[in-house]
Amino acid sequence: MSASTVVRQETPAPKFTHALSRTQRLVSARMESALVGDDTLLAAMRYAITGGKMLRGFLVLESARLHEVSDEVALDAALAIECMHAYSLVHDDLPCMDDDDLRRGLPTLHRKWDEAMAVLAGDALQTLSFELLANPKFGDNTLTLIRMLAQASGKDGMVSGQMLDIAAETSPQPLTLEQIILLQRRKTGCLISWSATAGAVIANADTEPLRHYAEALGLAFQIADDILDVEGDAEKVGKRVRKDAEAGKATFVSVLGLDAAKTRAQQLCNQACAALDIYGDRGETLREAARFVISRDS
Amino acid sequence: MSASTVVRQETPAPKFTHALSRTQRLVSARMESALVGDDTLLAAMRYAITGGKMLRGFLVLESARLHEVSDEVALDAALAIECMHAYSLVHDDLPCMDDDDLRRGLPTLHRKWDEAMAVLAGDALQTLSFELLANPKFGDNTLTLIRMLAQASGKDGMVSGQMLDIAAETSPQPLTLEQIILLQRRKTGCLISWSATAGAVIANADTEPLRHYAEALGLAFQIADDILDVEGDAEKVGKRVRKDAEAGKATFVSVLGLDAAKTRAQQLCNQACAALDIYGDRGETLREAARFVISRDS
Repeated sequence: MSASTVVRQETPAPKFTHALSRTQRLVSARMESALVGDDTLLAAMRYAITGGKMLRGFLVLESARLHEVSDEVALDAALAIECMHAYSLVHDDLPCMDDDDLRRGLPTLHRKWDEAMAVLAGDALQTLSFELLANPKFGDNTLTLIRMLAQASGKDGMVSGQMLDIAAETSPQPLTLEQIILLQRRKTGCLISWSATAGAVIANADTEPLRHYAEALGLAFQIADDILDVEGDAEKVGKRVRKDAEAGKATFVSVLGLDAAKTRAQQLCNQACAALDIYGDRGETLREAARFVISRDS
Repeated sequence: MSASTVVRQETPAPKFTHALSRTQRLVSARMESALVGDDTLLAAMRYAITGGKMLRGFLVLESARLHEVSDEVALDAALAIECMHAYSLVHDDLPCMDDDDLRRGLPTLHRKWDEAMAVLAGDALQTLSFELLANPKFGDNTLTLIRMLAQASGKDGMVSGQMLDIAAETSPQPLTLEQIILLQRRKTGCLISWSATAGAVIANADTEPLRHYAEALGLAFQIADDILDVEGDAEKVGKRVRKDAEAGKATFVSVLGLDAAKTRAQQLCNQACAALDIYGDRGETLREAARFVISRDS
C-alpha cells in the first residue's frame, strides 16, 4: 500500500464526496438537455464529457454556493467549464499531440471514432462553452466571466501551457522547478482558478481568497498527478501511467524526488485550506476537496 | 478567357475594392496589436489570419457603417470573425480532414509548422474570437452577438456543416441539390450571415434585410467557389483546384451543370442586391460585393 493511499484513508471527505457525486449528476443531466440528438457529432461531444471527475464543475457549484448564487445559474457555468476541459483533453489525446489511446478507462475519442471527429467534437465543445456563458442569467458580470474564461483557456492560458509542454519534450535541457510551475499554471492552473472564482465573479464578491485557494489546489493537483504517474495503477487511474518517466519528462517528482514532492503537496494543501479561513465552516467542503486531491488514487 | 472572367471585367467594383483593401489594412493592424509577441504560437496565429480576402471582416465593417456603428467598435468584431474563419481553415486543412498543402498561395499551417501547432493555433484563434467580443464596447446586445456567433460556428453551424461534408465523402449516394444547400448554409453561410448582420445587432436595428442579403450572398459565393474549382487556375486561386471532381464530390456544378450554376449565381446576386433596397444608395458597396463574389477569379 502506497503512502498516498494511507493518507487517503486517514482523511475521509464525506462533504466533498457527496458534493462531487451531486455535481456529476447535475452536470450530466444538464449536458443531456444541452446536447439532445442522435447525430454522431453530438454523441461524440457527450462521450467526451461523460465519466470525468468533474472537479472543475464542482468548484464552480461550490464557489457559487458560498456566494449564494443559485444552482440553476451556476450549473450552466459548471457545464461550460467541463466542456472546455473536455475539449482540451480530446485535442491533447490526438496522435499529433500526446497520442493517447485510453482516457477515463475508455478509448480516447479519436480511437472510438476517428481523428477528424476528435478535432471537430473538440472544436464544438469549446464553442458550446462560450455559448452557455453568453446568457444574461449570469448578471452584470457575464462579460467578465466570458473574458476571464477566454484568457484562462487561449493563447495566454491553457493553450500556451500546452505549447510549453510540447516545447519541453524536444528541449535538450530538462525543465527547472520554476518552469514546471509556470507550465502547470498555464496548462491546468488557469482553468482551475476560473472554476473556483466563478461564483464570486457572478456574485460580484471578492475573488482573492478563492484565487489563492485555487492556485495552491492547482499546483497540489499537478504534483499528485505526477506522483500517480509514478505510483499509480493504470486500471484505477484510467489512463496510461509511467509515461512521463518513459518520455524522460521533467516532473515535480523527477525534480523534487518522491518524498519532497509529497511534502510539497501537503504544504500546498495546508495553504489552500488556510486561504478559506474567511469562509469559516462553510469552506469545509472545499478544504476536503484539497485534502482529497493530494490523496486520490485515480 | 472564361465567361466568369468576362463578367468580372464588365462589372468594376470601385467602392467594394476600396472598402475591402481598407478592411485588410485595418484588420491586419488590429491583429498585430492583439497578437504581440515573438513566440511560435502567436506567429502561427498571425500567419493563419494574414493574406485572407477578409470578406467576412468587410461585411462586419460595412454593416456597421450602414448603422452608424463606429469603426473602432466594429473593428474588434471584424477581427473576431476573421479569427473564427481562420481557425476553421487551419483545422479543415489538417491531414485528417481535407489534407491540403496550399492555402492563399502559401503552405498550410501544419506544413509550415506541424500538426500539433495547427491544432493549437486553431484552438487559440477560436478562443480569441470570443475574447474580442466579450467587451462592453459592443453595448447592450453584446451577449446576443456572442451567442449568435457560437450558434453560427459550433454544433448547430459551421462544425455541423463540416460534419455533413465529411459524411458526404463516404456516402454511396451523391448529395441532392437540397442537401448541398443545407451543407453550404451550415458550413459557410452561418458565419457570413453573422458578419453581415453584426452591425445591425450592435445598433439594435432590424437584421432582416441584411440576413436576406447574406443568405443569397453566401450561396452565390459557394456556387462561385464550385465554378472556380472547375474553371480556376490554382496559381491565382491560391489553393488546389479540381479537387471536388477528383474526389467525386457533388457540387452545385456537378448537380446543376456549369451554365445553370452560373445562371443561379447571377439570380442569387440579383436577390442579394434587391434585399438592400431599404438602404438605397448607401447599400451600393454591399451590392458591388455581391457582383464581385460571383465574378471573382480567386
